[in-house]
Amino acid sequence: MADMNTTKIALNADIGESFGAWQMGADDLLMPHIDWANIACGFHASDPLTMLNTVKLAKQHEVVIGAHPAYPDLVGFGRRHMACKPDEITAMVQYQVGALQAIAAGQGTTVDYVKPHGALYNDMLSDGQTFDAVCAAVAALQQQRSEPLPLMIMATPENHAWQQRAETQGITLIFEGFADRAYDDNGRLRSRQFSDAVYQNDEQILEQGRRFSQGEAIVSITGKPLNIRIDSLCVHGDNPSAINTIEKLRTLIHGDESQERG
Amino acid sequence: MADMNTTKIALNADIGESFGAWQMGADDLLMPHIDWANIACGFHASDPLTMLNTVKLAKQHEVVIGAHPAYPDLVGFGRRHMACKPDEITAMVQYQVGALQAIAAGQGTTVDYVKPHGALYNDMLSDGQTFDAVCAAVAALQQQRSEPLPLMIMATPENHAWQQRAETQGITLIFEGFADRAYDDNGRLRSRQFSDAVYQNDEQILEQGRRFSQGEAIVSITGKPLNIRIDSLCVHGDNPSAINTIEKLRTLIHGDESQERG
Amino acid sequence: MADMNTTKIALNADIGESFGAWQMGADDLLMPHIDWANIACGFHASDPLTMLNTVKLAKQHEVVIGAHPAYPDLVGFGRRHMACKPDEITAMVQYQVGALQAIAAGQGTTVDYVKPHGALYNDMLSDGQTFDAVCAAVAALQQQRSEPLPLMIMATPENHAWQQRAETQGITLIFEGFADRAYDDNGRLRSRQFSDAVYQNDEQILEQGRRFSQGEAIVSITGKPLNIRIDSLCVHGDNPSAINTIEKLRTLIHGDESQERG
Amino acid sequence: MADMNTTKIALNADIGESFGAWQMGADDLLMPHIDWANIACGFHASDPLTMLNTVKLAKQHEVVIGAHPAYPDLVGFGRRHMACKPDEITAMVQYQVGALQAIAAGQGTTVDYVKPHGALYNDMLSDGQTFDAVCAAVAALQQQRSEPLPLMIMATPENHAWQQRAETQGITLIFEGFADRAYDDNGRLRSRQFSDAVYQNDEQILEQGRRFSQGEAIVSITGKPLNIRIDSLCVHGDNPSAINTIEKLRTLIHGDESQERG
Repeated sequence: MADMNTTKIALNADIGESFGAWQMGADDLLMPHIDWANIACGFHASDPLTMLNTVKLAKQHEVVIGAHPAYPDLVGFGRRHMACKPDEITAMVQYQVGALQAIAAGQGTTVDYVKPHGALYNDMLSDGQTFDAVCAAVAALQQQRSEPLPLMIMATPENHAWQQRAETQGITLIFEGFADRAYDDNGRLRSRQFSDAVYQNDEQILEQGRRFSQGEAIVSITGKPLNIRIDSLCVHGDNPSAINTIEKLRTLIHGDESQERG
Repeated sequence: MADMNTTKIALNADIGESFGAWQMGADDLLMPHIDWANIACGFHASDPLTMLNTVKLAKQHEVVIGAHPAYPDLVGFGRRHMACKPDEITAMVQYQVGALQAIAAGQGTTVDYVKPHGALYNDMLSDGQTFDAVCAAVAALQQQRSEPLPLMIMATPENHAWQQRAETQGITLIFEGFADRAYDDNGRLRSRQFSDAVYQNDEQILEQGRRFSQGEAIVSITGKPLNIRIDSLCVHGDNPSAINTIEKLRTLIHGDESQERG
Repeated sequence: MADMNTTKIALNADIGESFGAWQMGADDLLMPHIDWANIACGFHASDPLTMLNTVKLAKQHEVVIGAHPAYPDLVGFGRRHMACKPDEITAMVQYQVGALQAIAAGQGTTVDYVKPHGALYNDMLSDGQTFDAVCAAVAALQQQRSEPLPLMIMATPENHAWQQRAETQGITLIFEGFADRAYDDNGRLRSRQFSDAVYQNDEQILEQGRRFSQGEAIVSITGKPLNIRIDSLCVHGDNPSAINTIEKLRTLIHGDESQERG
Repeated sequence: MADMNTTKIALNADIGESFGAWQMGADDLLMPHIDWANIACGFHASDPLTMLNTVKLAKQHEVVIGAHPAYPDLVGFGRRHMACKPDEITAMVQYQVGALQAIAAGQGTTVDYVKPHGALYNDMLSDGQTFDAVCAAVAALQQQRSEPLPLMIMATPENHAWQQRAETQGITLIFEGFADRAYDDNGRLRSRQFSDAVYQNDEQILEQGRRFSQGEAIVSITGKPLNIRIDSLCVHGDNPSAINTIEKLRTLIHGDESQERG
């Protein structure tokens, strides 16, 4: 297992989202620049062979592997809310993480956290039953390990309440922030319906990344300070310019040791 | 883990082949009467929640759990040959077994063998590359365990050659026979195209079961003796009459302790 | 095309919901007793060959064929709400109905109405955008025909408003009632969460069927009269007792000519 | 319907092979340069909304629409042989073509030929039962039309025999050649296993295209002349260089009127 025990903010990215003959992203380009890889498990993207190749790539670059389970909706890429029952959600998360665990074990490595994808990720924060159902899956998976299996959710001003809720099932949370997304006054991501939802210039992205990494309040879309503690920053990159921004974030957060890893 | 280490012939059955709203078989009826359950993993049948419920039922009756991976073909129930490449096969077997392992672990139990399903089961014996690809998956899965993870294949007069081939990857084979199926002179199951492929009366079924269990030669469709060693007998049962036949087989094989288990 | 132009209440049923190796319902038993068959189109149930066989059975019994499109959710049987966009819904309804049309045409028959299934059926009445998106699909399909292609929705006290909304796209609605389901005071079906949601005895079913068929008000769960006009009654039947109830409904509605058709 | 009745060789291309969030090809770039578009129908690629958008694009450029049905194998892109039964094949082809027909009709256009995809395309020529099953589907679909619905297959030296076989079901064949692929001495495409299977330079491609279009014998990989009559040339293009080659082929075949259409 790669080292997750650090006080530094980790850079994570959604990885391995090709499917059969269809390519998505540029994993070869991105993998050397991240700390943690959220690897798709076949329900919103990927397939067994793509998962195997993605695990190999992560291991080669010494990137920590997380499972990225989703609703069963390939054509909608897991982005469409589906009214699944709690026991369906628990079972589908166990299924997907277990599939990735077996593939990782075959390569001599492990799955070290879980980050739900898309609509399932969002539904956790809007529906306590969904949150509890995901926690139940992670708790079941955690029994097999000597180490904890943390669950990544979106960081909000309510981190503490979610952590308390997760602890009732013995789950540790990892809180995720976004350097390149605007936040509304309530501490939630601004909807992509609005043209100002995504930061377009490096200056804004790096300033928000700096604030997150130094524990300062970030600034909402209306100028209000927001205290949101994070453990990891989500990054995206499928071209050299985006990779360059990621490297600037890394320098900002990690200092001198920030050269490309792996 | 339930006990697999016995010199007695185990009764195995394909279990957990419902899918979503569709029921198949009568698992509640059958599970108390078998030793080993080959549990479907979502590619030819089943879904995560059905898998979870099937694992619970197997555990309740102290039945050993095996994974029953297949080609990705729900509409064809995994019975149609698909021209998958070896690395696709290796990855899809790891994926399916891993999914079941995680669900089993959540219930405090384990997956203790692998039996490919349908066309994949048949293709192993007709295509050495497919056999090797399945062995590669099982070998990768076996690394995670302190105990072996045996692979079940159809018993034929060529058991020894297959065992040698499997051993090159460190895999132990379990050989499976059928009490209710006629065998051709070459020691393969008679095709279901022929009306005499399946034995219809208990007398024939029990006699073939007795011969298998006592290490005697069975008799081919033309009367030729066939020396086929088996470790396990496959049984089917979704009604009281079929269950009754299974119990007679159990008495024949296991003697006095043959009452319903679990 | 079978005759849809009658002032009598038609009996409709969901038909053809097997999938691959999995059987559902008892279509052979039910088909002779209904007027209109809502045939599944492969997204929540069925597959091309099952559709072909179901069309043959409907034709043999001179049953009018309707298409029964759904969200793409086999494992959830189309019963789970999915947050699909209007243009996705329009396209998926055209796709499914077109597939059934081609199969029907190959048998020398036609698809003469559309009844959305499950969550899509419910979402039409709770979300005007979904209703409009389904109407857009039916309007596109109707262009190919010399006759109208009506859309079946649940009858409520608001039939008139829905008919007006559908007419803006040139669509005629068929309103469907349920003889065996209790209605809440607002004229909607009582949720199956409640133990009194489904009528268990023939007397209640036949009385509600009689009221519907004679244009009388039905009675809500609290005793309130509800004026709900219907064109068709949905029936269910996979055993002789249920078929017997259907035949009693038929006699009640159709009078002397009520013997088994086809 | 666009005009298919011309003595000139038509340029066809596989189009609309994106799936949900995954893009494939560059249809916007390619569509203006082809005569006939083989549009994927959801079994190996595409989804209802992608099909709708692809039909709109074809109509805008006045490209003739063909259906491109396949085995049900998204993850394998329809390239893997599946042992489907003839009645399954007939039903799945009707289903897919019908779905596209409905979507085309909604845009005021039609599906004017059928070209099976991938493994199904190949299996037609290697297995007469598969060929007949596809013809049965096309014959059923043709009943609905006042005009023929031709079936496209690979041109070989045995065109005449295949045409005779198709005619027993009333089907007209369209024979397809490849300008950029080498042919073996038996008149079949050289396997992509070999490095010389695909022509890399325009000179070879244009020379083979010229020979095909002028009814001359082409030259096999060993230098043997092959008399293969074609009706249409398959082209590929997702970048400006490939599009440029297509335009040279067009000039060669169609002469002066070869500027971009639509």
